[in-house]
Amino acid sequence: MSWWDDIVAGTRAELGSYTFTEDEIIRFAREYDPQPFHIDPEVAARSVFGGIIASGWHTVAIWMKLAVAHNAKQPNAEAAPMISPGFENLKWLKPVRPGMTLHYSTEVTGKRALASRPARGLVLTNNEAREADGTLVMSFTGKVFAPRRQTGG
Amino acid sequence: MSWWDDIVAGTRAELGSYTFTEDEIIRFAREYDPQPFHIDPEVAARSVFGGIIASGWHTVAIWMKLAVAHNAKQPNAEAAPMISPGFENLKWLKPVRPGMTLHYSTEVTGKRALASRPARGLVLTNNEAREADGTLVMSFTGKVFAPRRQTGG
Repeated sequence: MSWWDDIVAGTRAELGSYTFTEDEIIRFAREYDPQPFHIDPEVAARSVFGGIIASGWHTVAIWMKLAVAHNAKQPNAEAAPMISPGFENLKWLKPVRPGMTLHYSTEVTGKRALASRPARGLVLTNNEAREADGTLVMSFTGKVFAPRRQTGG
Repeated sequence: MSWWDDIVAGTRAELGSYTFTEDEIIRFAREYDPQPFHIDPEVAARSVFGGIIASGWHTVAIWMKLAVAHNAKQPNAEAAPMISPGFENLKWLKPVRPGMTLHYSTEVTGKRALASRPARGLVLTNNEAREADGTLVMSFTGKVFAPRRQTGG
């Protein structure tokens, strides 16, 4: 993330891709979403999904993992951690099955100054996970605080 | 979760509580949100937070964990898994520090029939994590599909 002052709507970053293995799907879900269609291949085969699928929270957690790695490579990473008041409108659009590779991205859609926080501004983002053919699998509107350049003195 | 037909707005369930230990906070964040203020006590002490805090995704993942355990105890658990098209308006309102205990809940706020899915209806919920003194720490609007009773034949 850059300084809030420099951030421009329309700026887009590819965050990288991630392939979901059955082992990872099961490992995440056993801890945080242990429903049979996430953790038991035999039961999942008989479910409406016809096989194991990843927890939706897992597909979002991987977005965060990739976004943090991307942010750490920015020039002012130390001054600009990813601190968020929340997000909006999260959509899980397609089941994520073992072997699927998702391509993650983030794009700035707008920004707002914060009267209560002169040192930081809010940045709005559209975040997505897509298959290689472009099929949208997951999306949400992110909100993140970005540091503002110190002015005057 | 009950049958969609029987679900009534205002119904509330306590999902249980969870105490965040420093070890668990670090373990989750190392995998999915490895920012210094989540994984490194010394760096975190010098950050704006003054110490380690849990990843926001961790506080939500624990909601899911407790909600799944609660749902598994319902009479029609097999017929009514928690399948969701997404969530809205997630708010992280207060940092979660090691030793904090959060009390999680879910409350039905409304429901909608789905013209495209006669076998299922949508249930809207307000989901929260609070401290023992009632302080709201995290909230979001959930959306979940619930099975409808089969009618006629």
